Amino acid sequence: MKKKNKKVNAAILIIGNEILSGRTQDKNIAFISNWLNLKCGISVSEARVIPDLENVIIKNILELSKKFKYVFTTGGIGPTHDDITAKSISNAFKVNYEYHEEAYEILEKYYGKKAFNDGRKKMSKMPKGSKLIYNPSSAAPGFITKNVISLPGVPSILNSMIDNCKKYLIKGPKTHSKTINLYTVESNIAKQLGLIQKKFKKYVDIGSYPFFRLGKIGVSIVTRSTSKKKLIIVERQLRDLAKTKKIKILKI
Amino acid sequence: MKKKNKKVNAAILIIGNEILSGRTQDKNIAFISNWLNLKCGISVSEARVIPDLENVIIKNILELSKKFKYVFTTGGIGPTHDDITAKSISNAFKVNYEYHEEAYEILEKYYGKKAFNDGRKKMSKMPKGSKLIYNPSSAAPGFITKNVISLPGVPSILNSMIDNCKKYLIKGPKTHSKTINLYTVESNIAKQLGLIQKKFKKYVDIGSYPFFRLGKIGVSIVTRSTSKKKLIIVERQLRDLAKTKKIKILKI
Repeated sequence: MKKKNKKVNAAILIIGNEILSGRTQDKNIAFISNWLNLKCGISVSEARVIPDLENVIIKNILELSKKFKYVFTTGGIGPTHDDITAKSISNAFKVNYEYHEEAYEILEKYYGKKAFNDGRKKMSKMPKGSKLIYNPSSAAPGFITKNVISLPGVPSILNSMIDNCKKYLIKGPKTHSKTINLYTVESNIAKQLGLIQKKFKKYVDIGSYPFFRLGKIGVSIVTRSTSKKKLIIVERQLRDLAKTKKIKILKI
Repeated sequence: MKKKNKKVNAAILIIGNEILSGRTQDKNIAFISNWLNLKCGISVSEARVIPDLENVIIKNILELSKKFKYVFTTGGIGPTHDDITAKSISNAFKVNYEYHEEAYEILEKYYGKKAFNDGRKKMSKMPKGSKLIYNPSSAAPGFITKNVISLPGVPSILNSMIDNCKKYLIKGPKTHSKTINLYTVESNIAKQLGLIQKKFKKYVDIGSYPFFRLGKIGVSIVTRSTSKKKLIIVERQLRDLAKTKKIKILKI
């Protein structure tokens, strides 16, 4: 993994009717985003949830892969008829959808020759030229095609294999984050917070989120920056603001 | 709420750096989607998560509002500097961003004249011509501008006000759903399942999702259709498939 000083971005494309219908609560956006931030210095610029429809998948793959450095897809790489991610990516990039030799061998070994039926074989079909992302939980590998990384939808399996994506990614500068929790309401500090954000617009991103804890309400001020120094300066200004306004800071 | 036989669709646009960075787990996509399905017969065709950036919000609002019958946005309607949803929607539709008289009155009454500071006043600024979505939890209303419905990001507040959106929506035909849980693996039924899906392509949507329960693995077959009759026919075929393959069905 090479290191770069320029910001590196990514998009996440969640493929699956079960997420879109509300039947299943997505957990992959938060997981992948945290992992990319912490382990690779890559920030996620957009996430989308789309249905299992080939034309929709193709359109989104083409759009996002042009717009962002990396695209992570989840879902649709299993053995059933609704698993059409690999085929759709092949069609998006106009490359053959074919058996990947190594993936075929991995799965044949895992299931045994006798039990290696068509559904299981399908999991080794992918866009020609893809590289594998090994899967320590259930064998069926993910794959990277151009700048698109395809992972399974089941969170426990995805989580077990994500570190195997690292070697394909260019690393960006790490984003640091600090949170101050203030016992106040947003509107009490909105003006001053806005002024601080304006002053540090180029370096620090300041977010304000109400919280409810043990019957008390408060605001979490989350600051994010690639510069630790700037974060410390902003933190000092936030503490000064709390002092001036006589706002209690929650210690965690 | 009028009733239509034509399918009515919607998109969800989650606006917020805290979701995109992975700091906060989104719960609004699943909640809104379930509510739209059950209460309005509206199915969600796409969901997106985007950052608090005006140009990005404008681009997405224009794109999604053209493509889908309704767009639900969440987040960015509070009092702080990072709350720019209302302003961005105004700019997207080229209408004034101004105080909404009734919203102003609601908030002034809620906070009292003395405590009604600029941050709080800001929550009554919205695109000219918007209609209000009342908020029984914390007063600050959501709003509907053309076909875009804007709700807050905090799930408990959003949940408390979503029923107030109903009167603005055209109802579609309800999507019914049945789930059969089979004690087998996906690849054992992939072929037959694909054939059933092919046969009922026009009427029924069949999804296949692995599950792990009490140490046993299985597959949830989820069928969805606006026709109850077709669902029953497909269910019968799935039960026949289980019988032929000697697969146990989990009763819940």
